[in-house]
Amino acid sequence: MPAESRKKALRMMSNGLYVMTSRSGDRYGAATVTWVSQASFRPPLVMAAVRQDSNVFACLRESGAVAVHILGREQQEMARRFFAPTLVNGDGLNGEPFHGGATTAPILDHAPAYLEGRVLRILDGLGDHALVILEVVSAECREQVPPLTVADSPWEYGG
Amino acid sequence: MPAESRKKALRMMSNGLYVMTSRSGDRYGAATVTWVSQASFRPPLVMAAVRQDSNVFACLRESGAVAVHILGREQQEMARRFFAPTLVNGDGLNGEPFHGGATTAPILDHAPAYLEGRVLRILDGLGDHALVILEVVSAECREQVPPLTVADSPWEYGG
Repeated sequence: MPAESRKKALRMMSNGLYVMTSRSGDRYGAATVTWVSQASFRPPLVMAAVRQDSNVFACLRESGAVAVHILGREQQEMARRFFAPTLVNGDGLNGEPFHGGATTAPILDHAPAYLEGRVLRILDGLGDHALVILEVVSAECREQVPPLTVADSPWEYGG
Repeated sequence: MPAESRKKALRMMSNGLYVMTSRSGDRYGAATVTWVSQASFRPPLVMAAVRQDSNVFACLRESGAVAVHILGREQQEMARRFFAPTLVNGDGLNGEPFHGGATTAPILDHAPAYLEGRVLRILDGLGDHALVILEVVSAECREQVPPLTVADSPWEYGG
């Protein structure tokens, strides 16, 4: 299979841009991710492919709790902040204010919507990302706005 | 958790619309699906949540081969055809012409791009859809067009 065809076809798939957060004790993890989809209505499940070398993966594996934040179409700058390594200080989580949620996962104040989940299953060793399946245990839609997608952004992640 | 908040938040996630096809011997399965995402670069993996009572799931479980077709933004009518039960006759697969591919999965002639995969893992029993992880073994991008997304369509699938 020509690698170029595969890359082009895979990049025609449609994904959103999300900020995934988790905390394990004093350790925080947060990262912009895109390989995420709902996976069941009842119970409400979400599946996500997450880099194993990330802080957020280490935290969710340890704590079993994770939040997935949906960004608005205008929030590219917020997505960009979570490309950087996780940093928590007086300015928040990578500069974004947050508070505690229903689980141990930090909830970002400026996301228009988010889901909190309990990790049900992790599939490791199949590829270069771990597959995380989470059950949604809490959710809030603060504002119904058009969500930020990979297609709307200057970035690509796929191929 | 209020069910309404959860539904609104989950429906703010971004997904494409795809036609998934498979064949097992004389049996064909094809369905429009949306809970699909890439899951690894190396090897190239895709994860999909598929209804267990569908023909396409029966076929992919038996044959281990599946194709995922990306539709163009103007191909709503093609997506609609695969909401109906699978029917193969002189007019094609639900009226869409197709041919054989690199695997046993039928390839739709009018999709701008498609991926063919070998089923690596099926996770059943977690929710009301099975999670299918497939390794991409063949792919073609015939035309780079804006893909059809759930947001572009009159339909919703999530919540």
